[in-house]
Amino acid sequence: MGAGVLSGSAADPSEAPEGFHRVGGALHVDGVPLATIAGAVQTPAYVYAASTIRARYTRLARAFADVPHRIHFAVKANSNLAVLALLRELGAGVDIVSGGELYRAQQAGFGGRDVVFSGVGKTSDEIAQALDGGVLLINVESEAELTAIDAVAASRGVVAPIAIRVNPEVTVDTPHAYIKTGEKGGKFGIPRDDVTRLIEVATTLPHVTLRGLGMHLGSQIGNADPLRDALPRLVHLLGVARAAGHDIRYMDVGGGLSVPYAPGDVDADVEDYAALVRAAQAETRLALVLEPGRFLVAEAGVLLTTVLYRKHANGKDFVVTDAGMNDLIRPSLYQAYHAIEAVEAAPSRITADIVGPICESGDFFAKDRSVDDVPAGGLLVLRTAGAYGFSMASNYNSRPRAAEVLVDGDRYAVVRHRETLDDLVRLERPHPDWRTA
Amino acid sequence: MGAGVLSGSAADPSEAPEGFHRVGGALHVDGVPLATIAGAVQTPAYVYAASTIRARYTRLARAFADVPHRIHFAVKANSNLAVLALLRELGAGVDIVSGGELYRAQQAGFGGRDVVFSGVGKTSDEIAQALDGGVLLINVESEAELTAIDAVAASRGVVAPIAIRVNPEVTVDTPHAYIKTGEKGGKFGIPRDDVTRLIEVATTLPHVTLRGLGMHLGSQIGNADPLRDALPRLVHLLGVARAAGHDIRYMDVGGGLSVPYAPGDVDADVEDYAALVRAAQAETRLALVLEPGRFLVAEAGVLLTTVLYRKHANGKDFVVTDAGMNDLIRPSLYQAYHAIEAVEAAPSRITADIVGPICESGDFFAKDRSVDDVPAGGLLVLRTAGAYGFSMASNYNSRPRAAEVLVDGDRYAVVRHRETLDDLVRLERPHPDWRTA
Repeated sequence: MGAGVLSGSAADPSEAPEGFHRVGGALHVDGVPLATIAGAVQTPAYVYAASTIRARYTRLARAFADVPHRIHFAVKANSNLAVLALLRELGAGVDIVSGGELYRAQQAGFGGRDVVFSGVGKTSDEIAQALDGGVLLINVESEAELTAIDAVAASRGVVAPIAIRVNPEVTVDTPHAYIKTGEKGGKFGIPRDDVTRLIEVATTLPHVTLRGLGMHLGSQIGNADPLRDALPRLVHLLGVARAAGHDIRYMDVGGGLSVPYAPGDVDADVEDYAALVRAAQAETRLALVLEPGRFLVAEAGVLLTTVLYRKHANGKDFVVTDAGMNDLIRPSLYQAYHAIEAVEAAPSRITADIVGPICESGDFFAKDRSVDDVPAGGLLVLRTAGAYGFSMASNYNSRPRAAEVLVDGDRYAVVRHRETLDDLVRLERPHPDWRTA
Repeated sequence: MGAGVLSGSAADPSEAPEGFHRVGGALHVDGVPLATIAGAVQTPAYVYAASTIRARYTRLARAFADVPHRIHFAVKANSNLAVLALLRELGAGVDIVSGGELYRAQQAGFGGRDVVFSGVGKTSDEIAQALDGGVLLINVESEAELTAIDAVAASRGVVAPIAIRVNPEVTVDTPHAYIKTGEKGGKFGIPRDDVTRLIEVATTLPHVTLRGLGMHLGSQIGNADPLRDALPRLVHLLGVARAAGHDIRYMDVGGGLSVPYAPGDVDADVEDYAALVRAAQAETRLALVLEPGRFLVAEAGVLLTTVLYRKHANGKDFVVTDAGMNDLIRPSLYQAYHAIEAVEAAPSRITADIVGPICESGDFFAKDRSVDDVPAGGLLVLRTAGAYGFSMASNYNSRPRAAEVLVDGDRYAVVRHRETLDDLVRLERPHPDWRTA
């Protein structure tokens, strides 16, 4: 493994090179040089390492091996069908937040019982789709939604298995406010003071059955304090639900395990995390539901891009890439850090702004960053792009979305084709087909 | 026109109701109730008023009627084919920033001479596509790009008509740093100290012909000072280019006319703007190129959405809509303000967070906003959403992108169909088609 390259497979350092590593200076994914992929698929392209996803999944599953648990991958982090199918083969279920994600899960081969349905804005159609699909749990985020689920279930003559999502109201330290979800005053979950009342409401509704309680604190949580504060609150409320006579089976602790992006970031201590969660589980003896997203896939992905131009202006260097904020919006939206590396070993480094081709100043990947000195035509990767990368991509500036490539050992496959120009406009009509109001 | 409703057609107040207005409390677009569109097309949907686009275009064109000018609509603001076709009928050309936008312009009926090609990261393929399409001008953003254009033109046996984009290095006051483009230290344009040298480089390249100089200061510029500072710099450099023997024909002043979003925002004073620009034009006698985007379309559009849930938590009200940050990212990305109104007259108001269904705290449209008190099932619009709305939309959370609807008088048409679940996955494969490296 080359110096300075973050390991995507730290759990198994003794095995053959897997994940991202250098061979003779050239960055590889498992057995495949990234330059080979760029040559075959063009850029920009997302490239995912199956081996890294396997290693991360295995690490998490091992930490919970001796307690009943289910790992439901948060599809919003990376919803590519082949990534989902890989996780299904590993034994994962899914945590979905929309009818579109349910459809994706079904296309990837997941059964209804593999699915937990979360989210604050489920439509009646989506609730019906979930009930028809036989999902394991629908996580309830408001009283109005609880009533809506009961009504939709009644109309279909079924009983909906639900969990109540508790807002544990803990103070959470995340890199950006947008990824907090378990603080007081946010849109997520039921305030803990209100959970007891909602449990009673659930008791009165004939077409819902309360099977669990859950919580989700946020993403990229830097330390264990919020979890340490929140778990007893969840355990207490699970006791309340059981005392009210509900047949509770699941304790959903959400996701939030952090991933290192920048130099000096520490990897999540999965074993410490598991110890905390398992201690709480021991009090309830319920099956755990875990909802990791970023943790399983972030480090498994890179965004592969070509340097289009080098530009020097006012004493400042710019590296203009063929990837833009439409491909990866995290730097612009969350001021997120992504490590940037040359694919072929670069002889020197420069300090530059790494920017995309899009016509706004928000289209940047890094500012005043010391990076490998790569000329026009050379390849770069943005690391740790497997989560919230492609899943947030847009067609801004009418740019076709990138290809997605999965690598496994010495094989690779295009698992999502690059969009064509025709794909951009296929749902549009220049000549309106008028209707009169 | 109802009280409190921003007029989208201030230029022609004497004509029949056009743009957005209320009839008996119900919000209409021209002659069509928005509730009718919601019933027929479902929500979320973008709805555009052709009358407003016409009024804005006419207002701008009139202000420059007595000088040679070309209005090139910045396609990135709204790239819907029907909107482009409407602008073409009005006499507009287009300002494009990618091969995708060129393709869109061609699909909407624009000829090559209607096209100006801007942007800091043009690929060789895009430059070739533009030359094959016979574009009027390619705006050059760096020396490296100038060389690349010459090489591509040489390979095709043509001479590329170019303009140099000058970074006028003025201090610009915009609502958000991401929409500044004419300040020192940014990625856009050629530093003005370097323009003279680049003009000389252009002289030596056989496959480019310098036809103009341009600039673009940014978007939503609040006052005339940056323009007042920048125009003399552009005029001076045009003189330099002519003195160097170039057959200069165009003076491109870019876009940036501001649009009112929030109460108290003032509309751009088009006539003042035109007076400044025309005074500079008088010194050069060149044809003006104007590149308005937001100014022509922002107020012509709304995002129509249904309230899914009302939620009360910790003394705070939430209105959960079926539109999310994937549909309109401006509040989250730029902290942008969009006015929010009930479609049917609401009897009272509440103070609430208006949030989407997406699973992150960044998915909001307004916080602690006094808005019409609309129950679940009711309709809202987010105003001034015709620019950088749909064009920045994504499938985040696997949400199909919204329909786009154009209204003209008493007629409406779906000009982009809502995406289906199958559209989400049609380029993907759950079972990889492996290749060996």
